[in-house]
Parts: sequence; C-alpha cells; structure tokens
Amino acid sequence: MRYIKDEEFLRGDTPMTKEEVRILSLSKLDIEPNSVLLDIGAGTGSVAVQMSKLCPEGKVIAIEKEEDALELILKNKEKFHCNNLQIIKGEALEVEKHIDIIFDGIFIGGSGGNLEEIIKAYAKKLKPNGKMVFNFISLKNLSTATNTLKALDFKFTISQISVSKVKGEHQMLFANNPIFILEAWR
Amino acid sequence: MRYIKDEEFLRGDTPMTKEEVRILSLSKLDIEPNSVLLDIGAGTGSVAVQMSKLCPEGKVIAIEKEEDALELILKNKEKFHCNNLQIIKGEALEVEKHIDIIFDGIFIGGSGGNLEEIIKAYAKKLKPNGKMVFNFISLKNLSTATNTLKALDFKFTISQISVSKVKGEHQMLFANNPIFILEAWR
Amino acid sequence: MRYIKDEEFLRGDTPMTKEEVRILSLSKLDIEPNSVLLDIGAGTGSVAVQMSKLCPEGKVIAIEKEEDALELILKNKEKFHCNNLQIIKGEALEVEKHIDIIFDGIFIGGSGGNLEEIIKAYAKKLKPNGKMVFNFISLKNLSTATNTLKALDFKFTISQISVSKVKGEHQMLFANNPIFILEAWR
Amino acid sequence: MRYIKDEEFLRGDTPMTKEEVRILSLSKLDIEPNSVLLDIGAGTGSVAVQMSKLCPEGKVIAIEKEEDALELILKNKEKFHCNNLQIIKGEALEVEKHIDIIFDGIFIGGSGGNLEEIIKAYAKKLKPNGKMVFNFISLKNLSTATNTLKALDFKFTISQISVSKVKGEHQMLFANNPIFILEAWR
Repeated sequence: MRYIKDEEFLRGDTPMTKEEVRILSLSKLDIEPNSVLLDIGAGTGSVAVQMSKLCPEGKVIAIEKEEDALELILKNKEKFHCNNLQIIKGEALEVEKHIDIIFDGIFIGGSGGNLEEIIKAYAKKLKPNGKMVFNFISLKNLSTATNTLKALDFKFTISQISVSKVKGEHQMLFANNPIFILEAWR
Repeated sequence: MRYIKDEEFLRGDTPMTKEEVRILSLSKLDIEPNSVLLDIGAGTGSVAVQMSKLCPEGKVIAIEKEEDALELILKNKEKFHCNNLQIIKGEALEVEKHIDIIFDGIFIGGSGGNLEEIIKAYAKKLKPNGKMVFNFISLKNLSTATNTLKALDFKFTISQISVSKVKGEHQMLFANNPIFILEAWR
Repeated sequence: MRYIKDEEFLRGDTPMTKEEVRILSLSKLDIEPNSVLLDIGAGTGSVAVQMSKLCPEGKVIAIEKEEDALELILKNKEKFHCNNLQIIKGEALEVEKHIDIIFDGIFIGGSGGNLEEIIKAYAKKLKPNGKMVFNFISLKNLSTATNTLKALDFKFTISQISVSKVKGEHQMLFANNPIFILEAWR
Repeated sequence: MRYIKDEEFLRGDTPMTKEEVRILSLSKLDIEPNSVLLDIGAGTGSVAVQMSKLCPEGKVIAIEKEEDALELILKNKEKFHCNNLQIIKGEALEVEKHIDIIFDGIFIGGSGGNLEEIIKAYAKKLKPNGKMVFNFISLKNLSTATNTLKALDFKFTISQISVSKVKGEHQMLFANNPIFILEAWR
C-alpha cells in the first residue's frame, strides 16, 4: 500500500487531516479489504479517499454539509479513482435516517456541533466488533466524546500526536497542531 | 489489517519501537503483499513482525546481534506465526556479504555505531524505486544519516513524532520520547 | 537571578515540577520582591523554594500533607536558606481556616482530589489583582479547574508545554510529560 | 517582575521569539539587576526589551541589520521605556570590532549565516562565568553551534521546547514551532 501524501490531495482552504494523523487514525480502524466504512464530516475527503483505497472490495460513505468541501471530495474521489466511495450531502444528524448500513468502522474528524447526538445516533450503526475513531484539536470536544462514549459503555484509548516537519536546507522544524486520536470499541 | 499493539509483543528490557512510530514508519515503506523487506537492528522484532504481516506473500529478513534480543524476536515470530520472517544473527556489516537479496524496503531503527557504513553497504541492496526508513532518537545519528544519504544522492523527508498516551480515570498524559522518522529514496 | 536547577533539589521519590515548567509557572505569577505567595500541595518544595528566592522581602507558605514530602520541603528549605518560607502540614481544605493571609499569587501543582473545593476556598484568599497558576498532567483536572474558575468569574489562559532534554554524546532526546499551565485572574 | 506578553510587542511581519521560549531563554542567562547583556540578531527586540527590564541597573546592546526590524526594536524600546537598551545597526561580524564590552550574557536567536564565526568572535566578549544562550528552529544551526562550542571548550545543555496555546471556547490547541534552547558556559 502506498499511502497518499498530503500534497497529492486537492484541498483549497478546507482544513485537512494531516498525513501522519490520517494514517494512524485509519490504522486504528482495523480495515480489511471488504470493510464498510463511514467518514462523518469528510472535509477535503482525504480520509475517505484513503479509506477507499484500503477497502477496495468494501465501501466508504462520506458525509459532508459544506458546499466547498463537497466539491473537493468529489474532485479527490475522481483523482484517486475511488469507485467504492459514496458522498452524501447533508448534516450528519439529518441524513442519518437514510443510511441503513451497519459499519465496520466510523471516523469522525470534524469538530462541528452536535457531537454528543452524532455519537449516540451513529453508535447504533456500528457492528458489535466495530471501531469508532475520532480526531480532536479541541479539549472540549474530546471531553464531550469521552463522556458520551462512557455513557454508551464504550471502552477507549486516547493518544495525543504532535508532528513537526523538517524542511529546507537548514532542516527547520515546523509544527502541525497536536491532535488527539480517540479509538473506541465495545 | 489489524495492527499489533505494543502490549501484545514480548519485549523484556529491550527497547521497542512504539506503536505509532512503528505504523508510521511502515506506512512510508509502501509495502505490498509480495514486498521483500529488511529490518536492521531488529530489537524485539516488533517492526519485523508487523512487516511480515504486511507482506504475507513476500519475505522479511531481520538482523540482530544481541543474544537477548534474538530470543525475543524468535518468540515474537512464533507468537505471531511469521513464516516469512528470517532472522539473521550478527553485526549488520559482517552479515551483509551473505545477503544476496535486493529489497523493496529497508528499515533501520537501531542506534548502534557504524551508521554511515551500514547505510552505504545496504543502499546497494535497495531496488531502484525502493525506500529506506530510519528511526532516530539521536540528533547526531539523524545528522550522520542525512549527510550520508545526501552523498549517495538520496532524497529524503524527515518528521519528528511526539506521542503522549492518555491514561487512567484522570486522563493523565504520559510522553513517549520524540522520534525522528527519516524516509529516503532515489 | 540564578534559577535553581532540578538536580540541585533533594527529591527522593516525590514527583517534582520540572525546571522549565517551574520557571514558566512562576513567571506567570508576576512575582515582586515583596510578594506574598502560596504553594498548595508543595511536593518536594521546588516551586516554594524558587518562589522564596523570587520574593526575598515577601513571604511564601507551602501546604503539604504527605510526611515524606514534608521532610523533603524542610530539607530543601534549609539547603537553599529560605527564611521567608513557612511550611504548613495538612490537607489544603482543612488548614485553610487557619490561614488568614491574602495572597498576591497562588500556585497549585498537586493533582490531589477536591480540586473544585480547593479553588473555591482559596480564590477568596487572592488579592483582587492576584494570579492563580496551576500545573496539570491530567485532562480531567484541567477541565475541572477551568469549569470552576469560569463559575467564579475568573479569566484564564492555558498553554501545553512539552520539554525534551537532549542528553549524551549522541544528543538523544528524552521527553518530559507534557504539562498544562493554567493562569487565572479576575 | 511582570513579564511582557507577546501581544504587547509591536511586531509587524518580523518573526518573534515567543513568550515561553523568551522567558526560559532569559532564565538561563542568570540575569542580575546590574548585568550587561547582548542580543545578536534582535529581530523585533522582544528579547532585548525583556532583558532590559531584568537588568535595570545594567545595560543591554541589541545588534540587528534589517531596516524593518530596527524600526520595530526602536518602537518597542520606546513603548517599554528601555533607557538602558542600545541598538547597533549592522552585521554582527562587522560591528563586533566597535564593541569593547565584556558581557555577562549573550543571546543569539537569529538564524542568519556565519553562525560559527559569530560564536567564535563573541565568545571572546563573554565574562569567564558568563553564559551564551541560543534559540534554534534549525537542526543544522543547532549542530553548527554545538560543534563550534565544543571546539571552544564550552560546556552546554540543550532542551527542545514545544508550546501549544489553548484558544477559544472549545479549547483548541494551536502549536508553536518547537525550539531548541542551547545554554553554554565555560
């Protein structure tokens, strides 16, 4: 598997899950070639596209509400020939009733509102041995997620990942923002 | 793919490449099911074992000189049923002449001496489009490696990865040591 | 001012606020030569001793309940000739009623229980333009503190500090655990 | 001492040593009220201005070659009433012969060229028990500095400092670039 590099994605001004965090997050989803996966708040689609490459015989659904982001996801889907990636436009809580699939893995990277409700609604769409993986830049959202997951009897582990890129002739270090990766299962 | 967790490996007192750094390092090797890979200074064997799972139709060679570590690699090989993993006992520079394989990917995680000579010797055993990936906790070794690779006309990228694990009821943060991941290719 | 180095303190097995975090935490307390300061849960006394050096014409009170730690504070007080440092033995919430001083600055580094009650009780002992500074290794305690401070109409800033020490001939990087420094004022 | 916050400095587009790194760097210079200090490559002047506040009975010299930066230093000097701060315009190596002062402490934060020559030239202007403190974002410059200092029989310690600021209602973490602080003495 050659993982896609950040600079290969079309991204505009939409925030994107960075390479290292994307790879680590996906590694925690235990993706098999035939996995069925969900990306809630897909942004540029970088996670959904990489997911789609990791489950060529499976299926990926990406939910996104922003028009700009939807366009990017579509372009990235085309660029990387992701035939098994379906894009759904809308608010996660509103489109939920139209999705009658049970997932092997669910990724939530977006930091939009309604996190508690989204977790509660989509936890029902997770297979018994499935995983939910979250990325948070926000301490409040991390706290909301762990409280909600605990109430739903999920177990979880949390890591904080700080990546700095060494650039240029002088090997200067440039930091990405630290991200909490939360991995939950029942 | 379910990636192996740190606590699943037998490790004794031998230092081990930690989960996140192991996964990221392997992701940079572009491993295909039939890849032929080398792990120089294999330590507990955690990288070699995970490699072996990622190339079930390929082959992994692990070089290690320490008796204690060799025993651990063997046990981990057995625990994880790595039939495609061959362990070679010895100094990397001494056993080199007995290895007449050209590799798709080479991982160097050990911080032993002779880094410059090891890179020079094993760069010859890398396929034209192959990758070398290094882990360094040491600024001096990172510098030695980049100087050597530059002289050999390799291109490279470097990231520094800091991982903290959130543990316990109070969600306390415990830091792993920061690791430089160096990815080189020609 | 020559700041005291970590290795100069007597410390036993008691956890100690590390040098960089100690200096940054104290810098946020705006300490003047005649400041009156409080250290709740003083541990080895490293913060209280450094405080005492920064306010030679002022006064420092250190509260600690553990017998082992109390002995260390006393020894460090003697080693660094801190005549303006008074040590009080006991639980912060129990000894509170015996302390009829209004402080310029209060430091809370301990991660013991009762954080909410301690903040509420000691916020009353802070001068109108005084500062409270906290160190947290725990996300839960950080969250408890910010919620409590908000309810008490405090304003605050938070930084997360990760320090790695470069050691040895090979310049190896060893990480301290990341610490949240919370600075609060009204 | 109330330390100056980043947002209080006039800064334009000139890169500025950030608050935590500035405070830690200055703490390593063992500044006394009558210290005589030098800031080579002063940029916005944030370090020189804070220095000047820490040695009110001493003196600070700031060297800077860039016109834009010189203007900022002058404005910050005025804003913070730094009567003991003298600004010298020019290349550090060229103005060196005009500076016949022996310093208690020298700070080098700029990452300009000629680092080796600058260290050699200014090491002669350091009191026997004086300190040199450096900030580096660049691995190459860190390496140049440690090699040069070693050849000059300096001893040194190095720390890497990563600071993230927690901002906004959702407590989002934003990273500053990691900085190496090098403290050298003979």
